[in-house]
Amino acid sequence: MEVDKPEVLREVNAACDRYEEALMSNDLDTLDALFLDAPQTLRYGVGENLYGIDEIRAFRLARPGGSPSRRVLKRVVSSFGDDFATSNLEFQREGSDKIGRQSQTWLRTDEGWRIVAAHVSLMGSSH
Amino acid sequence: MEVDKPEVLREVNAACDRYEEALMSNDLDTLDALFLDAPQTLRYGVGENLYGIDEIRAFRLARPGGSPSRRVLKRVVSSFGDDFATSNLEFQREGSDKIGRQSQTWLRTDEGWRIVAAHVSLMGSSH
Repeated sequence: MEVDKPEVLREVNAACDRYEEALMSNDLDTLDALFLDAPQTLRYGVGENLYGIDEIRAFRLARPGGSPSRRVLKRVVSSFGDDFATSNLEFQREGSDKIGRQSQTWLRTDEGWRIVAAHVSLMGSSH
Repeated sequence: MEVDKPEVLREVNAACDRYEEALMSNDLDTLDALFLDAPQTLRYGVGENLYGIDEIRAFRLARPGGSPSRRVLKRVVSSFGDDFATSNLEFQREGSDKIGRQSQTWLRTDEGWRIVAAHVSLMGSSH
């Protein structure tokens, strides 16, 4: 299994860029399209644990302002074979000194790359 | 690509059980063995961001008491094909009322299932 194949990294990085843009513009259709439409899809947000695409959709719809504006400080994308990848990034929200982290697991489907699991948190002081 | 193949779920659940046991007994050899020995391997902990297996090892060695004792409240394992899986769980630490979350991305290797990315956080009130 080839790790970090350049063409796979290019594809997944493009999907990550698309996600970031959609998050910042609260483009719900694109955000929704980038998550796998499945009951297994899962998203742990800073303040919520969402199981299945239905809970993720309901959460986004109930948050009309969208995600707080943020700056990505660092992003690492890794791929494993042709069909699987992870994206991990650190971010800082406007006006906050906390470091946020976002992890996504990506899967290649016939329709393109999709997120099957995501976890977003703000780094705490305990360990 | 078959999702949630029973035999794959069995294997990954067994690896997750092994990880939890090793975490609670601070069995550093097993914890280390369950993370992929690679520079791509990444772990966002509650209070630290670790890039590469070397940083993960150094962190564990510098934490002789190990991880605080915790109770797993819920765990969801999903597999995608034969070689990839995610594990996500909620936990509560002894004496804390906060909900913790742990996400792991697992990869099948010739030596067995290995974690390529992990993210642990305590749920916050902001979103």
